[in-house]
Amino acid sequence: MNYTAIRRTLGTILKFEAIFMLLPCVTALIYGEIEGAWYLLVAAGSFLVGQLMSMKSIDTHFFSKEGFIMVGLSWIVMSLVGALPFTLCGDIPNYIDAFFETVSGFTTTGASILVDVEALSHTSLIWRSFTHWVGGMGVFVLILSVLPNSGGYKMHLMRAESPGPTVGKLVPRLKDTARILYMLYIALTVMQAILLIIAKMPLFDALCTAFGTAGTGGFGIKGDSFAGYSVPIQVITAVFMILFGVNFNAYFFLTSKDNKKLAFKIEEVRVYFGIIVVAVIVITLNILKVCSGFGDALNKAFFQVGSIITTTGFATDDFNLWPELSKTILVVLMFCGACAGSTGGGIKVSRIMIMLKTARAEIQKYIHPRSVNRIKMDGKPVEDETKRGVSVYLLAYAAIFIASLLVISIDNFDFTTNFTAVAATINNIGPGLGVVGPAGNYASFSWLSKLVLIVDMLAGRLELYPILVLFSPSVWRRKG
Amino acid sequence: MNYTAIRRTLGTILKFEAIFMLLPCVTALIYGEIEGAWYLLVAAGSFLVGQLMSMKSIDTHFFSKEGFIMVGLSWIVMSLVGALPFTLCGDIPNYIDAFFETVSGFTTTGASILVDVEALSHTSLIWRSFTHWVGGMGVFVLILSVLPNSGGYKMHLMRAESPGPTVGKLVPRLKDTARILYMLYIALTVMQAILLIIAKMPLFDALCTAFGTAGTGGFGIKGDSFAGYSVPIQVITAVFMILFGVNFNAYFFLTSKDNKKLAFKIEEVRVYFGIIVVAVIVITLNILKVCSGFGDALNKAFFQVGSIITTTGFATDDFNLWPELSKTILVVLMFCGACAGSTGGGIKVSRIMIMLKTARAEIQKYIHPRSVNRIKMDGKPVEDETKRGVSVYLLAYAAIFIASLLVISIDNFDFTTNFTAVAATINNIGPGLGVVGPAGNYASFSWLSKLVLIVDMLAGRLELYPILVLFSPSVWRRKG
Repeated sequence: MNYTAIRRTLGTILKFEAIFMLLPCVTALIYGEIEGAWYLLVAAGSFLVGQLMSMKSIDTHFFSKEGFIMVGLSWIVMSLVGALPFTLCGDIPNYIDAFFETVSGFTTTGASILVDVEALSHTSLIWRSFTHWVGGMGVFVLILSVLPNSGGYKMHLMRAESPGPTVGKLVPRLKDTARILYMLYIALTVMQAILLIIAKMPLFDALCTAFGTAGTGGFGIKGDSFAGYSVPIQVITAVFMILFGVNFNAYFFLTSKDNKKLAFKIEEVRVYFGIIVVAVIVITLNILKVCSGFGDALNKAFFQVGSIITTTGFATDDFNLWPELSKTILVVLMFCGACAGSTGGGIKVSRIMIMLKTARAEIQKYIHPRSVNRIKMDGKPVEDETKRGVSVYLLAYAAIFIASLLVISIDNFDFTTNFTAVAATINNIGPGLGVVGPAGNYASFSWLSKLVLIVDMLAGRLELYPILVLFSPSVWRRKG
Repeated sequence: MNYTAIRRTLGTILKFEAIFMLLPCVTALIYGEIEGAWYLLVAAGSFLVGQLMSMKSIDTHFFSKEGFIMVGLSWIVMSLVGALPFTLCGDIPNYIDAFFETVSGFTTTGASILVDVEALSHTSLIWRSFTHWVGGMGVFVLILSVLPNSGGYKMHLMRAESPGPTVGKLVPRLKDTARILYMLYIALTVMQAILLIIAKMPLFDALCTAFGTAGTGGFGIKGDSFAGYSVPIQVITAVFMILFGVNFNAYFFLTSKDNKKLAFKIEEVRVYFGIIVVAVIVITLNILKVCSGFGDALNKAFFQVGSIITTTGFATDDFNLWPELSKTILVVLMFCGACAGSTGGGIKVSRIMIMLKTARAEIQKYIHPRSVNRIKMDGKPVEDETKRGVSVYLLAYAAIFIASLLVISIDNFDFTTNFTAVAATINNIGPGLGVVGPAGNYASFSWLSKLVLIVDMLAGRLELYPILVLFSPSVWRRKG
């Protein structure tokens, strides 16, 4: 095991986190909030420790094992430190709750333990929403895009942090790929914020909303999430949620000179939009009777489908009260998730497509034993390794899901609550049904359940392996 | 497509069904029930049509595709005919309900649409329970064991009907394998019936109970299932439920001269008993507060764990009222199921073992890329084809599950009811939670939901492929 490389990486993360925390510090200055002092203190401490840890800068090689461990540990450390100011400034007195909230932020889950979100200081509110933005595209992708040394082995880091069954480089150099991704990410975020301001949303709200949308996070800053905002604001947010759930390759193609058409040919993106259209139509018709007219139903269905399939988790209505068919569609969309290579969570549309194509090909083989059915995505054959990776991913996913369900059922909430609480955290959505519905929160779970759900959020955001490797005894047994 | 072979097979099935129906006819004679006349009429008609269909006995070859279609169609025809007397004699006036009940019987599910089971005639009660016994070991296995012509291609039939990821022949000749299986099956059934009679259960009840236990079916003949019987009767039934969930290979080894020890070395059987022990301990402790003392809790936990993991579905208590942890364990056991090569349903312990071993090996590969981790069962390496088969099985299973959940949610029952209704039918258990809990039934679902659940029961019992092949358009498009 290359402990030096791990230590240095953690140090770099701490320094970056210190920089991120300047945003709440500035916010505190503007609003004259004393809470900012604690953020400044933690930022200073974080930078100092980070500087000490990242000294002796001999660049050493490392392998995929260390890559997973670095990413897993970094996300945990980042959340442990990010939670400190919440507790120190008194906004979230219980540290486990603050840790839950921060993990929920960085993993872009948006599950909250807050009973009254509007009681928070502006300083804490913007930090809470900003963690979504940082976690959305990934902190390692950011580091790779700005730090000079991008050796080939850094690919391990990007692979461990980026969602989807395969990670492709857009351009030959990894650093350029990371930079392009962040440019697109920033551009879309700014566009949304400007549109929201034009739609007469206050600046502070617009920033928090754009951060939460871009990362597909879902922390709201109002007790009723999005129900109180105007219809134009709701529509803008819904459209951007869906845009942030699109594979970023599509935007890269759109901005290139020669490959514009390719953007519209990505199979995953087409299926993603197909699912959205069908779900919106069915839910609109199904909730007609509990809405005030067709327009209202369409608006609510569009917003909620966009919010859930991208695993954002904003809500314009308490869908816990919708008819069962609509609720079940939403639960299924929770698992489906957005496109690979987007900021959204869930299993990902491409994994589900590979899985269904594989199953169909195998059944065809039973019917016509001599038929050769190689499955394809975007016209290219899918490697056996990718197919195996997808199966194993789903198996590990199911195992974590079941284990979590059993542990949190000790708290004796109903099955619907428990099932959707695990679904909403492992898929990084936020709200579920029952007690954890849009009008509820995660406050009443025991600390044990909260820890389990924290692990689920991290496992979901990092796509299982970094967390599984971290908890794997054989990693720590032998020396590498 | 070899239509002749399919027609002849269906004819044979009809003739066998006519013979099965003699049991309710005899019962009607004993109890002097007029309902028996309808059973005799249907039996006669079934035999006649069967005889016509199976004429022109040129023995033709067929392939795995036809094997799947024969098995799938046979089970549907068998249920359609088996449901006739229920409706004709007036015990179940609605034919879709009767069809649901018969499919539930043959597939050894035990899900009932009856609101008052005690209102049925003895004739219908024994037919209902006997369908469990016929479906448990499988009707093709029976046919193969008694008919003379057992060509090698008949293996396709046995493979399509027998549960588990691989089907092994116990002895070189398929016919002998089938015969040994049925001998063991009959011996165990008779043993249970005798023990029940010694424990002072009435003969009629003992027969129905033994049929329901042997097939791991779960139709009770009392409104309160097993709650009203004495503790010895409950314990005998619990022990036999668990015994019928064991891989029958173990009994074959036990009855052989030289291989007795092998019976105790089958990994799947050891894990199966391990799961039962752990589940019983946890549930006993968890339900202590809702039971009258430790003995009562242990008895209830033992019975219910045995009933659910073997997918039988008898109940001594309304576990819908148990604490959430116990209910969640039962839901997980619903999916787990019994051993391959037993009469139980569910995903099967061996599939879950292969799946977990595969996932662990893949994660080890991430940690130590050069390690070779071939996975083994019972000391023998697991073929890649088996591993792939297990993954695809689970994917197809998940797809059917989700589609069913969406359709039945139209009826607007709660999520817990819908989720466990699908789980309890596709895994061939019977009772779920909520509306379909042990004290409830499936009567209030719409006819559409009932049809979906019928397909789930058949898909679950036949392990998906025969039903998937039957519904696959490409089968019926080309000529083979």
